[in-house]
Amino acid sequence: VFEKAGVNVSVVFGLLSEEAARQMRSRGKSLKAKDGKLPFCAMGVSSVIHPKNPHVPTMHFNYRYFEIEEADGTKQWWFGGGTDLTPTYLNEEDAVHFHKTLKEACDKHDLKLYPKYKKWCDDYFYIKHRGERRGIGGIFFDDVDSPSKEEVFQFVKSCAKAVVPCYIPIVKRHCHDSFTPEEKLWQQLRRGRYVEFNLVYDRGTKFGLLTPGSRIESILMSLPLTARWEYMHTPPESSKEAEILEVLRNPKDWVH
Amino acid sequence: VFEKAGVNVSVVFGLLSEEAARQMRSRGKSLKAKDGKLPFCAMGVSSVIHPKNPHVPTMHFNYRYFEIEEADGTKQWWFGGGTDLTPTYLNEEDAVHFHKTLKEACDKHDLKLYPKYKKWCDDYFYIKHRGERRGIGGIFFDDVDSPSKEEVFQFVKSCAKAVVPCYIPIVKRHCHDSFTPEEKLWQQLRRGRYVEFNLVYDRGTKFGLLTPGSRIESILMSLPLTARWEYMHTPPESSKEAEILEVLRNPKDWVH
Repeated sequence: VFEKAGVNVSVVFGLLSEEAARQMRSRGKSLKAKDGKLPFCAMGVSSVIHPKNPHVPTMHFNYRYFEIEEADGTKQWWFGGGTDLTPTYLNEEDAVHFHKTLKEACDKHDLKLYPKYKKWCDDYFYIKHRGERRGIGGIFFDDVDSPSKEEVFQFVKSCAKAVVPCYIPIVKRHCHDSFTPEEKLWQQLRRGRYVEFNLVYDRGTKFGLLTPGSRIESILMSLPLTARWEYMHTPPESSKEAEILEVLRNPKDWVH
Repeated sequence: VFEKAGVNVSVVFGLLSEEAARQMRSRGKSLKAKDGKLPFCAMGVSSVIHPKNPHVPTMHFNYRYFEIEEADGTKQWWFGGGTDLTPTYLNEEDAVHFHKTLKEACDKHDLKLYPKYKKWCDDYFYIKHRGERRGIGGIFFDDVDSPSKEEVFQFVKSCAKAVVPCYIPIVKRHCHDSFTPEEKLWQQLRRGRYVEFNLVYDRGTKFGLLTPGSRIESILMSLPLTARWEYMHTPPESSKEAEILEVLRNPKDWVH
């Protein structure tokens, strides 16, 4: 069923320079270091699943926790993460199911979360040079440190628990769908865009590639097994290929 | 013979901000702008050729000219460019032929040029996160503005004229070589590295992707038709695959 799939679990700790610490917070809060060094600890789990069948979408999730100790002993902590879907072809029923499951996980904690993190996801997975998103989104958040550590942890747990019910029903529904060579080719071109996003824009990938001594194979695990680039490929109007492009260019609200 | 090949010719002119002008010079010379704007003009030709047969290497060249007018009317100008080879498998005879042809083109102008630009090429096409170069190099230079415009132009013309005799004999020698599915697979993995270099490090690609209104299909023409990423792929010791990796990790002098 899956062409390439992986799970990364990481727990790291050590000392950060003030500059590296600043880079880890996307909105750059100030951090007071003792002798320029900040003890930190970070942990996370992430996964990318690229299926063989072009009617089964690629899925990615990542949930992570950071902690940094300042000079006076106070600890800054925050959670980040998200779950998002990258279909080769649009299936509205799947899109609604995926977003509805995520919305339900968010709504248990605060009705404001899903709309905010849905938009954050659309903004984050933007391939600027293409004017397209990587996929049809999901949720994405970072630097979340309120209302309390316990409450955010409960929220993140709800999100993580939603991964399987979000995705597996879609896999089961389509993994035996028949497909044509043309559909497989379109999947390969979309995989090319996945590579473009991950290598050019993804903060985690860029951070990893720039960090000396990081484990490259883990960082690039997210890349598909195969990808394709064709010069000036443009799907015909009103085709299934044009349909998904339209949604990647103008994200939709799948649940209200 | 060729799986994907393209030639880009570009001639652009307009006004640059001081910051953009600074970015265009890799060693950042100072430029005095009038009202913060600098009239510029740039032109270049580039080509990337990805052959089908894994025994025929990928070749890339680019030669370009820039001119910027300062506030007092003085013009700064410089040439840049290079030609480099990316084989899937090492063929020493080909490597020597390629470098020797480039060296002869350089030596006609100044014996110091080839060693300097050969090293610059090895340094430029470095995939830092892999500890590998993209290929077996060639020549690369930028910001060349001495001894005189006419002399540099003659040198660049010699380099450009060397492209065909550098590469075509190698294509002819190997385009009918038989190859195995395993050799094709290794070619695809190397193409993945080509994508990594171009999207993560190449200055021209990065500059293009960040420039609003640039022609994305021209910029990404350099990407191969297909590429592949396998988790933790490591060729066996003393294999043909390990042989090329060794040279990509530790560049050799092919001609003396």
